[in-house]
Amino acid sequence: MAGGERTFPRKRREEMLRVAAELFHERGYAATSTADLAERMGIQRGSVYYYFETKEGLLLELIQDVYGRARASLARVQAGDGDPVAKLRALIEDHVISFTTNLIPGALVINESGSLAPEHRDRVRADAAAYEAGMRELIEEGRRAGALRADVDARLACMVVLGATNWVHRWYREDDERTPEEIARAFSDVLIAGLRPQTGTSSPPLSSST
Amino acid sequence: MAGGERTFPRKRREEMLRVAAELFHERGYAATSTADLAERMGIQRGSVYYYFETKEGLLLELIQDVYGRARASLARVQAGDGDPVAKLRALIEDHVISFTTNLIPGALVINESGSLAPEHRDRVRADAAAYEAGMRELIEEGRRAGALRADVDARLACMVVLGATNWVHRWYREDDERTPEEIARAFSDVLIAGLRPQTGTSSPPLSSST
Repeated sequence: MAGGERTFPRKRREEMLRVAAELFHERGYAATSTADLAERMGIQRGSVYYYFETKEGLLLELIQDVYGRARASLARVQAGDGDPVAKLRALIEDHVISFTTNLIPGALVINESGSLAPEHRDRVRADAAAYEAGMRELIEEGRRAGALRADVDARLACMVVLGATNWVHRWYREDDERTPEEIARAFSDVLIAGLRPQTGTSSPPLSSST
Repeated sequence: MAGGERTFPRKRREEMLRVAAELFHERGYAATSTADLAERMGIQRGSVYYYFETKEGLLLELIQDVYGRARASLARVQAGDGDPVAKLRALIEDHVISFTTNLIPGALVINESGSLAPEHRDRVRADAAAYEAGMRELIEEGRRAGALRADVDARLACMVVLGATNWVHRWYREDDERTPEEIARAFSDVLIAGLRPQTGTSSPPLSSST
């Protein structure tokens, strides 16, 4: 079928990206050669270059895919109905689900963004900064609406959320007994509750750590 | 002075550890050679081996120092007075202060533990597991006492806390306008509040992420 033949290169390309992601994740980007990639893909080394000009092009595409999804999630959340807290909850849940369902690309974003060529690294850093700014803006909107606590620096609040959600790549495994949705819900429950205005007694002074 | 001479090797050793940590952090452990270390330390390459048998020995000592402090923090918190929530708060604050005041060794624990020789990696993983188990036990004690929420899986609650606190190494810089203690307090305020039993309305269903 002509249709099948036309789509073959795209499928082949996606399969190569998947294999490259696995290898970069297992061995590290620097320790993976184009020869390793070709061998795992079962193709000649020269064929790798038919799809990707460089090894770095593979890593860049894998990382940019993740940021593309993060950008889409942020845009969808921002455009949606609902108060800032519901939006922040949706963003947190998207983030956790993205890391659990695309575990290896997510881990590459965290561990290998620094391996990109300087100009690509800068672009990826700008993507990361834009996502973080979008999350912080939701937190600040929530504070202005009185729905989130104003007694904690908004950037630190954002770093609590990003740290907890980004760290998912370090412990989550596909055989986890909980679904991505259950994990996402637990994370958003804890993080949103932690950011709500607090009533009652204030916290005791810094204890053993001082 | 004889006394001064006797302490010189220890100071020299500590200085070498500090320099090695910087280099491993800047370039990555694998990309740092013993020749690089000797050059940065201003000594002959052979002298490195007088203090450390191998390059890996330097990394192991740096990583084990961090776990030694974490173990001491956990033991002090566990032995202290106070309810499980106060203890958990103290552990969180210690953790954040440790990462802010020992930024590079903390980052090496996160980024380079996998570079250790297998038998050392296993030992370090056991240290990490013991610390995590100690934190989770405090969370479970808090739940049994009715002081922490029981509607979120204790392991997931622990992963929220560990993720938020471990992530500090990625964004904290020594010129941060906030003190380590201020950051530690903000983190423990948000995380403890998020783990308290929640009253009032339950959360809405998973939104845009489903």
